[in-house]
Amino acid sequence: MSQKMWGGRFGDGPDDIMEEINASIGFDQRLAHQDVAGSMAHCQMLMDTGILSQEDGQSILNGLTQIEKEISDGKMTFSRALEDIHMNIEARLSDIIGAAGGRLHTARSRNDQVATDLKLYIRDTIDHLHQQIQALQTILAETALSHAETLMPGFTHLQIAQPVTYGHHLLAYVEMLERDKGRLHDARARLNQSPLGAAALAGTSFPIDRHQTAKALGFDKPTDNSIDSVSDRDFVLETLSAGTICMTHLSRLAEEIVVFASAPFGFFILPDAFSTGSSIMPQKRNPDAAELIRAKTGNLIGHLTALLVVMKGLPLAYSKDMQEDKKGTFEALDNLSLCLAAMSGMMQVMEINASAMATRAQEGFSTATDLADWLVRVGNVPFREAHHITGQIVQLAEKEACRLDELSLENMQAVDERITADIFDVLSTENSVASRTSHGGTAPENVKAAAKAWLGRLKNA
Amino acid sequence: MSQKMWGGRFGDGPDDIMEEINASIGFDQRLAHQDVAGSMAHCQMLMDTGILSQEDGQSILNGLTQIEKEISDGKMTFSRALEDIHMNIEARLSDIIGAAGGRLHTARSRNDQVATDLKLYIRDTIDHLHQQIQALQTILAETALSHAETLMPGFTHLQIAQPVTYGHHLLAYVEMLERDKGRLHDARARLNQSPLGAAALAGTSFPIDRHQTAKALGFDKPTDNSIDSVSDRDFVLETLSAGTICMTHLSRLAEEIVVFASAPFGFFILPDAFSTGSSIMPQKRNPDAAELIRAKTGNLIGHLTALLVVMKGLPLAYSKDMQEDKKGTFEALDNLSLCLAAMSGMMQVMEINASAMATRAQEGFSTATDLADWLVRVGNVPFREAHHITGQIVQLAEKEACRLDELSLENMQAVDERITADIFDVLSTENSVASRTSHGGTAPENVKAAAKAWLGRLKNA
Amino acid sequence: MSQKMWGGRFGDGPDDIMEEINASIGFDQRLAHQDVAGSMAHCQMLMDTGILSQEDGQSILNGLTQIEKEISDGKMTFSRALEDIHMNIEARLSDIIGAAGGRLHTARSRNDQVATDLKLYIRDTIDHLHQQIQALQTILAETALSHAETLMPGFTHLQIAQPVTYGHHLLAYVEMLERDKGRLHDARARLNQSPLGAAALAGTSFPIDRHQTAKALGFDKPTDNSIDSVSDRDFVLETLSAGTICMTHLSRLAEEIVVFASAPFGFFILPDAFSTGSSIMPQKRNPDAAELIRAKTGNLIGHLTALLVVMKGLPLAYSKDMQEDKKGTFEALDNLSLCLAAMSGMMQVMEINASAMATRAQEGFSTATDLADWLVRVGNVPFREAHHITGQIVQLAEKEACRLDELSLENMQAVDERITADIFDVLSTENSVASRTSHGGTAPENVKAAAKAWLGRLKNA
Amino acid sequence: MSQKMWGGRFGDGPDDIMEEINASIGFDQRLAHQDVAGSMAHCQMLMDTGILSQEDGQSILNGLTQIEKEISDGKMTFSRALEDIHMNIEARLSDIIGAAGGRLHTARSRNDQVATDLKLYIRDTIDHLHQQIQALQTILAETALSHAETLMPGFTHLQIAQPVTYGHHLLAYVEMLERDKGRLHDARARLNQSPLGAAALAGTSFPIDRHQTAKALGFDKPTDNSIDSVSDRDFVLETLSAGTICMTHLSRLAEEIVVFASAPFGFFILPDAFSTGSSIMPQKRNPDAAELIRAKTGNLIGHLTALLVVMKGLPLAYSKDMQEDKKGTFEALDNLSLCLAAMSGMMQVMEINASAMATRAQEGFSTATDLADWLVRVGNVPFREAHHITGQIVQLAEKEACRLDELSLENMQAVDERITADIFDVLSTENSVASRTSHGGTAPENVKAAAKAWLGRLKNA
Repeated sequence: MSQKMWGGRFGDGPDDIMEEINASIGFDQRLAHQDVAGSMAHCQMLMDTGILSQEDGQSILNGLTQIEKEISDGKMTFSRALEDIHMNIEARLSDIIGAAGGRLHTARSRNDQVATDLKLYIRDTIDHLHQQIQALQTILAETALSHAETLMPGFTHLQIAQPVTYGHHLLAYVEMLERDKGRLHDARARLNQSPLGAAALAGTSFPIDRHQTAKALGFDKPTDNSIDSVSDRDFVLETLSAGTICMTHLSRLAEEIVVFASAPFGFFILPDAFSTGSSIMPQKRNPDAAELIRAKTGNLIGHLTALLVVMKGLPLAYSKDMQEDKKGTFEALDNLSLCLAAMSGMMQVMEINASAMATRAQEGFSTATDLADWLVRVGNVPFREAHHITGQIVQLAEKEACRLDELSLENMQAVDERITADIFDVLSTENSVASRTSHGGTAPENVKAAAKAWLGRLKNA
Repeated sequence: MSQKMWGGRFGDGPDDIMEEINASIGFDQRLAHQDVAGSMAHCQMLMDTGILSQEDGQSILNGLTQIEKEISDGKMTFSRALEDIHMNIEARLSDIIGAAGGRLHTARSRNDQVATDLKLYIRDTIDHLHQQIQALQTILAETALSHAETLMPGFTHLQIAQPVTYGHHLLAYVEMLERDKGRLHDARARLNQSPLGAAALAGTSFPIDRHQTAKALGFDKPTDNSIDSVSDRDFVLETLSAGTICMTHLSRLAEEIVVFASAPFGFFILPDAFSTGSSIMPQKRNPDAAELIRAKTGNLIGHLTALLVVMKGLPLAYSKDMQEDKKGTFEALDNLSLCLAAMSGMMQVMEINASAMATRAQEGFSTATDLADWLVRVGNVPFREAHHITGQIVQLAEKEACRLDELSLENMQAVDERITADIFDVLSTENSVASRTSHGGTAPENVKAAAKAWLGRLKNA
Repeated sequence: MSQKMWGGRFGDGPDDIMEEINASIGFDQRLAHQDVAGSMAHCQMLMDTGILSQEDGQSILNGLTQIEKEISDGKMTFSRALEDIHMNIEARLSDIIGAAGGRLHTARSRNDQVATDLKLYIRDTIDHLHQQIQALQTILAETALSHAETLMPGFTHLQIAQPVTYGHHLLAYVEMLERDKGRLHDARARLNQSPLGAAALAGTSFPIDRHQTAKALGFDKPTDNSIDSVSDRDFVLETLSAGTICMTHLSRLAEEIVVFASAPFGFFILPDAFSTGSSIMPQKRNPDAAELIRAKTGNLIGHLTALLVVMKGLPLAYSKDMQEDKKGTFEALDNLSLCLAAMSGMMQVMEINASAMATRAQEGFSTATDLADWLVRVGNVPFREAHHITGQIVQLAEKEACRLDELSLENMQAVDERITADIFDVLSTENSVASRTSHGGTAPENVKAAAKAWLGRLKNA
Repeated sequence: MSQKMWGGRFGDGPDDIMEEINASIGFDQRLAHQDVAGSMAHCQMLMDTGILSQEDGQSILNGLTQIEKEISDGKMTFSRALEDIHMNIEARLSDIIGAAGGRLHTARSRNDQVATDLKLYIRDTIDHLHQQIQALQTILAETALSHAETLMPGFTHLQIAQPVTYGHHLLAYVEMLERDKGRLHDARARLNQSPLGAAALAGTSFPIDRHQTAKALGFDKPTDNSIDSVSDRDFVLETLSAGTICMTHLSRLAEEIVVFASAPFGFFILPDAFSTGSSIMPQKRNPDAAELIRAKTGNLIGHLTALLVVMKGLPLAYSKDMQEDKKGTFEALDNLSLCLAAMSGMMQVMEINASAMATRAQEGFSTATDLADWLVRVGNVPFREAHHITGQIVQLAEKEACRLDELSLENMQAVDERITADIFDVLSTENSVASRTSHGGTAPENVKAAAKAWLGRLKNA
């Protein structure tokens, strides 16, 4: 059996294959800044506790400062033979400062080091996502305020159900996004304990001060169990879960963009910047960005699933399986960030065809509920009976091919004589919408107030 | 084309197929108590706001009280022709009290009704799971306290790495479970807003008091956007995410039970109550419960994935797709609850073979790190160099087929002359463990203190 | 710690919990017929090889025949204390025939028995699904034939792209379904090897004849490795994969039904039998069946994921984890079967609004490609240049708010003078469609021929 | 709202964000060779059918030949502004040959072009994977042949069940891998129809010859429905499914490597080339490659899930969502290929500790089944009774802390007097294994024959 046959693409032999499967530097270089920050905090603590001499410690800090600059300047070169970001940085440190570099790894292990790096990275990413979500909320709330009275059909089952306002519809997304921020916020609070100093899995006999490194890195406190510290990836799973739920929200808006921008609906006019043409159909304006947002939801679901699979059934403490926690997570969270940016970009400039929306809002006998409610309220008819009567009137209108408010009073009274001319007050879409003043209802006054409240809240956040 | 061919198993025609696919009563009867509770709060509010007369309202309340009793007594019969739990209960109400029953559905819709029911159900389930997790934590912490000094090998990569104590190992799971409770707690707080009164999607023109129903049902407040109220299933997704992460924790312990109970390890002696024999191998004691817990993690991952898929790309507000939110969720959370119970049952009575654990803890040159750390601490050798020296000594011991503490001082000094007789102080597993007194480290004094702190905290929770 | 606290819902103690988690009879009774069939084949073989006496064997066969009848008549009672279908049937056998019943399990194990049962069940299910898919294909091909000339807009990105015929559109689904059948067929061929006689995992020392039992149960041959025989669940995974891909096809048609039945599209008029109304909006006709088909795709993706998770990383041979292979699989394949029936039911009676479809087919400058192609073909303009010219003409029509065929020749010539009056031949949707005679193109003559070919092929299948 | 806030990392404005989300050249450049091959076949056909002049056609072919060389030489530069591989190559073509380059896209679209490219890529990948699987099978079968008699414990539930041979165990994997090849083979056969010429979705009015291009590209025939041609991604889903199932097999062997290489088992001695040490524990030899194979199963499950999610509910024909079909698929199949290489590398040089395996094979009363079978066979005891008697004897041995074959005949006869001295013939592991001569059983003669048959079959494949 030639090695070529089973190794083919991976070079000449086992070493190449092992390097290919084992090295993580291709993706964990994303943790470079976090790794340096963790090392600097660790070094300072080793100096302060006397584990490391001031001289060696200062030399290490100087070396790390230089490395940080090299990374920022894009001048650091990474070697796959050195496997991962930790060894790359440590090796570079020894290049720069010599043997003292070998003292940095005292009282720590790659197990607690990578957990620390990854927590710092996830924390930074959560902060960035929080800002992006806030920005999207602001765009939506601003648009909602200016469209607090703009009529559109409210859909259930994609069937026209009741008239609502476009502003009200948009504020539904602001609510969803607020819960997304809440989940990220909770995840951030829960992860904010420092694993640094848990060492390989058992802690260390060096007199380290884990509270100091925790504080230096912005953690609330050190973790309380060293085995858990190195075997825990809950914080990645929880962040991916929160991110995936957020993506389902974006995907719902994306689906609406695709549907509302289709010719038969014609509610949305796609911004050029977020559409493309076709190589064979020059007339097309395709909602590419919206479709890609919708599709990338699959990417997040997939990466969440993947990491759950990786973590399932792993004995404690660290197993190499856990190296598979990074690449997919980075891609998933990048995708979320990109989709938030693209959605914000689209929604900020999305033009609507208000007249098409208002016209459709009148279709589908969309004020039938108002009719039924009038019967209950004014005629004291039990709801189920009112529902039945309304059904008959809708059938009448269907037969006459007219809207409910185009039916004659006589025709309606023929169905139920309790109906009076007042009924017409509730059959217009404007009146229907204006009447829904219950808490959270679509009445324009509600929507205006809610949009203003959101904008105030978002500005002060 | 005969209907039989495409309908085959589903009866004679389209009606049977539609009933089969459409009716949810087969699974949503689990919401019966919540549905009655929601209806009672709604009815009382309709009375208090004057939308419903006292007479009709009281009649409805009496009817609902009777229905609640019928459900509790298992005497309520459910009909698939009535589709879902809401219509089954409303129909029964009309049976009992006549036409007034038709007034209950005033100012609400099945859309807000089912959202309310499901939130109440999830909230109850979270409360139950919280208790169960707490119980498992207590069992583990109690066992940890009594095994704070019991030696076992700490594994990384399932290779013996460093000695730890069994108590320390168990407390890692207590930490994980605490995060699980935290996630469930956050999910509960986030869901605790009442959708009741959002009606179909737009709110209502009836002068309802959503704050009253929210309060009556134990919600913090009503939801603020009616469209979001009926289209939101975040609370199910978030609870499933939290539950799935919890299952990954149980699966890790389950995997350890399977491995530790295998003959070559022999650390655990499976309790009879949670093992089974074999139909063909009478001598077997199989870790069935642990294996099933491990496997059921797949069930939760699958149901989480399924609901994410359902919700992805759904236009607002309600779509029938959302009916698929219940059956899988019920099964997933039932499974989690069952697995918590089974794990608690197993861990409460699990016998260990402490001698096998202690013996293995000495294998694999498990105190090599202690040797390296000694060189750093006492010999002021840079860590990387100490690592290198230790590697040579391990090779020596490997060649001599002895433990590190069985090597002669001369042999070790031949590798590095800085080594002195003091080295033997750190080479025993007892001393190794005792030395790891860093915060969160495995030293028995740490473990005892941590276990006691947990027990106090859990008792007062 | 009271048992109640951790066991709560599961009864009084460990035994109840263990029974709850361990017993499979709740779902594996679905395998009752297969289990009896397998036992009868096994018994006959034991008799023929002299391992079992004729007398005992005949007694067992008689007992099994009676049990088979009891199952068919719904008279068999299943006991959870007996755990699974195998023990339930064996216990019933001993009830009926006494001690001889204890001889049936000679030279087999539950491990090979359950693998055999499940293979037989999956095989039966594949056969049923095959028929159902064929039925749906026939309905679609028949409809395609009658709508070979019915114009509709062809969409890409849900934007109107080019005119096609409805028949052509439907035949795309016939193609997808044919691949689905192919996948199921291949899965069936691959699974059709009998595991019976592999015993627990190692084979047996009894002189059994596995070829005989294989043949008796309709298998092509016995499996060739006893360890693989009991540890293999590929056949479930492969069938679930094929079924899930089939569901994605149904979900695409379901999405189209939802969109095409929405008021702004108005292409489809939903059959009453597969729609429902609304509790609050009496006028609604909701596409419930289509939405549920779309949603149940999540169920299949979830169950496929779940079983992949279960099987990942399981050491050989049998582990109890594999008991989780059944319940989800049954539900997934039931759902697929139900969705095929519901889709067939809907599509058989779906009414279309051909005029709305034809009108929309003319929108969106849908024959712009025809214009570009004419420039290439007649004017010998390079495609990219033709694309550019067409873009300018489309802009012109957009400005004039007219269709392409409503532009004057002069106006078009102002853009490019090579355009002649012949251009109008390609600008109508009828001509556009008729011209696409390339293999597989949408020209009505193609569609008719393809539909007829399908109907012939399906009839003879 | 500053654009910076919502666009932050993506540059200065909408254009950057759109390019970031929309451009696929970052990953679809993997299709460069396939794209050129497809274009060459298309060009030749356009020439042969007279749609393109010989002169223009030859010029295009020359240009494409040059581009193919540039790609192979790594000299082709790709531009993100040109979005995808198709536009990059077409633009380069026009650079080289001028305006004639604009004629290549006649009678095709990016929709059929990308479907063709991707099918060609998947087909190539399947062929490569097939070879790799064959190579791994050969390594396993060779090892199986040399270990046809090597005893090891056969496990169920990771409990020692019955003795088997290591060769038999390995051949179970050869069986699994054969099914994997079968699935890939079936997927390849099913995908092998050319979509080229389906154009955007409706076919074309140019007199193209799709059979010619199909043949030129090695397809069996052109696809039969143009809409299906561009909307189909079944071939990716099916290949990912097959690949994911294959990964579950690798993951099972990987899990066994991890467990068998752990100190308490000690069956496997990990090859240095596929292990690593530890930064803090110099003595460790970690099974990194095996752990990564196990973990990467999650990656494939995730990518399969992701694409199923993307395709679910997509209306026909092409939607941009489908662009998400490539990156994850490439990574998934790369991972599978890498894992096959790593597993082959490991298994080719894996050393075993045959004595440890043989010793463990004797533990756990592993020949209890043999005892029970002897009672049935020789003593004519019903199996269930034999099972019961054996259980008593195992308890006896457990009490005496000896193996079954170390019990005295008297002691056994005290349990059941039908037991004679012949019993000892079946109680040794060697005899146990030798006796399992049923088809597919673990008897060394079976294993040798099976291994030889496999090696013959694999050599001739």
